[in-house]
Amino acid sequence: MDVELVSIGDELLLGFTIDTNAAAFARRAAAEGIRVVRRATVGDGATEIAAAVREALDRTGAVITSGGLGPTADDLTKPSIAALFGRAMRLDEAILASLEARWAARGWPGPLPMTNRNQAMIPDGAMILENHHGSAPGIWLEDERGRWVAMLPGVPREFRGMSEDALLPRLRARGAGGAVIRSHTLRTTGIAESALADALGDLAKDLLGVALAFLPGWEGVDLRCTIRGVPAADADARLGAAAAALRERIGRWVYGEGDADLAAVCLEGLRARGWRVAVAESCTGGGLGARLTAVPGASDVMLGGVIAYDNTVKVSALGVAPGTLAAVGAVSEKVAREMATGARARIGAEVGVSITGIAGPGGGTPEKPVGTVCVAVDVAGVVQSRRTVTIGDRGEIRQRSAQLALALLRQALRDAPIAPAAASP
Amino acid sequence: MDVELVSIGDELLLGFTIDTNAAAFARRAAAEGIRVVRRATVGDGATEIAAAVREALDRTGAVITSGGLGPTADDLTKPSIAALFGRAMRLDEAILASLEARWAARGWPGPLPMTNRNQAMIPDGAMILENHHGSAPGIWLEDERGRWVAMLPGVPREFRGMSEDALLPRLRARGAGGAVIRSHTLRTTGIAESALADALGDLAKDLLGVALAFLPGWEGVDLRCTIRGVPAADADARLGAAAAALRERIGRWVYGEGDADLAAVCLEGLRARGWRVAVAESCTGGGLGARLTAVPGASDVMLGGVIAYDNTVKVSALGVAPGTLAAVGAVSEKVAREMATGARARIGAEVGVSITGIAGPGGGTPEKPVGTVCVAVDVAGVVQSRRTVTIGDRGEIRQRSAQLALALLRQALRDAPIAPAAASP
Repeated sequence: MDVELVSIGDELLLGFTIDTNAAAFARRAAAEGIRVVRRATVGDGATEIAAAVREALDRTGAVITSGGLGPTADDLTKPSIAALFGRAMRLDEAILASLEARWAARGWPGPLPMTNRNQAMIPDGAMILENHHGSAPGIWLEDERGRWVAMLPGVPREFRGMSEDALLPRLRARGAGGAVIRSHTLRTTGIAESALADALGDLAKDLLGVALAFLPGWEGVDLRCTIRGVPAADADARLGAAAAALRERIGRWVYGEGDADLAAVCLEGLRARGWRVAVAESCTGGGLGARLTAVPGASDVMLGGVIAYDNTVKVSALGVAPGTLAAVGAVSEKVAREMATGARARIGAEVGVSITGIAGPGGGTPEKPVGTVCVAVDVAGVVQSRRTVTIGDRGEIRQRSAQLALALLRQALRDAPIAPAAASP
Repeated sequence: MDVELVSIGDELLLGFTIDTNAAAFARRAAAEGIRVVRRATVGDGATEIAAAVREALDRTGAVITSGGLGPTADDLTKPSIAALFGRAMRLDEAILASLEARWAARGWPGPLPMTNRNQAMIPDGAMILENHHGSAPGIWLEDERGRWVAMLPGVPREFRGMSEDALLPRLRARGAGGAVIRSHTLRTTGIAESALADALGDLAKDLLGVALAFLPGWEGVDLRCTIRGVPAADADARLGAAAAALRERIGRWVYGEGDADLAAVCLEGLRARGWRVAVAESCTGGGLGARLTAVPGASDVMLGGVIAYDNTVKVSALGVAPGTLAAVGAVSEKVAREMATGARARIGAEVGVSITGIAGPGGGTPEKPVGTVCVAVDVAGVVQSRRTVTIGDRGEIRQRSAQLALALLRQALRDAPIAPAAASP
């Protein structure tokens, strides 16, 4: 089943409100085999609403609107769509009674304001979609050819609640379901999008009939496999086969699936080895610590660390040698290594992780441009480090720097046996 | 000038990505007198892209697309719109050279992957919109009737950066402008939305004819004044008068305007007094340090700090007394005060700021529920602290905790003279 969404409201069009309803519905509907094929956003004007809904009806015949059902004069969704269907508006006594009861129950003074009576007006022949999450009822309007519009309120809590308990059951009853849209995501880090495409070769063009999307971001490149229009059991099997084929080619760069977080993956790896971690941060200023401690339950593995933003703190709190700073500068693999070792030793952890870099916008030189980042990991005295030039603005460079440090930590953990005692000969 | 936006991507349509570009552009454009009159969201398919763009061209003749400019096979924006305009695709040598230079500069191994060459293909007769924020250049395509499409990348940082430095100047040159929509925002912290409304009294209902919106969030409550449909000069004068009236009533809670950041406000206050700051963080795990160092140029004021997530680190790295921890627990004003003093003294700053709290989801007790947060500020040995219970999930409690610490720091700074020497009698 294909549907279109029309989001209604000047606030959306002006950009003062971000539309989260449409995305929430699309995700939820996909799991039921309902596909959102187009979305439109229009202002509160009756002409605009009618135009967008008419076009969507002509294309798909199945339209869900959100917004414009409130009591005030700028709420024109119902009358403009009623006019489109050639229906008059009438007062619904049951809705009016329920609005009056709600008004009295909340203890507000006086009778229901006249303005609120607008909410009891519905198009002739419309079905009510009950709203257990707010005051404005939803409306279902259908013509003799079976083309329909479902009108829901725009308030996210109400839209989502009513999607779940009033709209989706109705769509299911009309025979949605069966063929589904399912996705499976592999998360990679440490490899560029284009290099990943090259490494995948022919698989990038034809992945066993499964659609493949490359989604680059500061965390790395996600590979999303999507399948649609097949029964649920087949979908899972084919997505599983696609993921296995991808892992065979580029598994080395895959750190997780779905919405896996590299910090959580690292904490799990540390926990499995009975190791605790300390951080030493310069350009990220606490961002790596914040990433690690954002994971609930981090406290058995994450001890803490030092924010060594100023070079004096690198020396006093981490034991970086002033001579190293003078010889190679703060943004260098050598300083990163001394920072990682200092954090591990001074905080008393088994593992130390460090970051030093130039986040910009100032501070770059030809040899060390903005974006230059050095990261290091010290595992019980064995130190690895890496230097790279990342892209983005200050915020993104800092995010990418923390991700780089975590990627190096993950690599160090992957190379370490889970039971160190058993691994000795 | 009226324009339409077309956002392109299966990810958007499936709801895996929330479209923030369209809203950001609409807000920004309104200030220039450019009105977004319709938005559409379509998937990655060439037919869908061409259909949405053709319809928008027929209506408005002015279309901005976002997304589908990447290097991989699912990026079809350029060829499908080229076909719509009846233009062939050609390889642009200058773009190719710049992609190759960029690839080399990042230190990735090997030559530019073949996949990346797609980004150098442009429609015949197109103008390049230079992208200083990423690799994919934007495209401007215009027909003989003056109808145009501007194609921008979907990555938010690139879309916004290019809107600002490549697209808006072009639209301005075409004569956008006239009646405008303008907004002015005052940012408050430390006072609830309803208390703010009460303090404003009659101004909350009628603010000199300017629309007033209350926007609560984890940073505090923003007050947004909006005026529309008047000439630019009048708009500024009336917004200025509205802001002055608000400040007269509730100026005490106002820390800035527009998108002011409380961390930047605090850094400025420290800088004005010649003071440097060190942080000590438990539940935020580096989040306060990350907030402060997110501000470009923080390094003259922010020295660093200690992430004391584990209690052993509070003792060893900050000098918190084990007896204090045993007597009142880690989440207490007393421990917060010792942490602030420890950070100030050990890092060698004039000011220390600390946070200790229970971010959840576990760890709450009846006496100290999840959300309990203690913050402290030590200015040259004079310590202030505050305890509160914040709301939200783990992430929001951590954000609110850092904001609380900054609010206490701002208060301490506001009470301190800017030129300490001159202030002595």
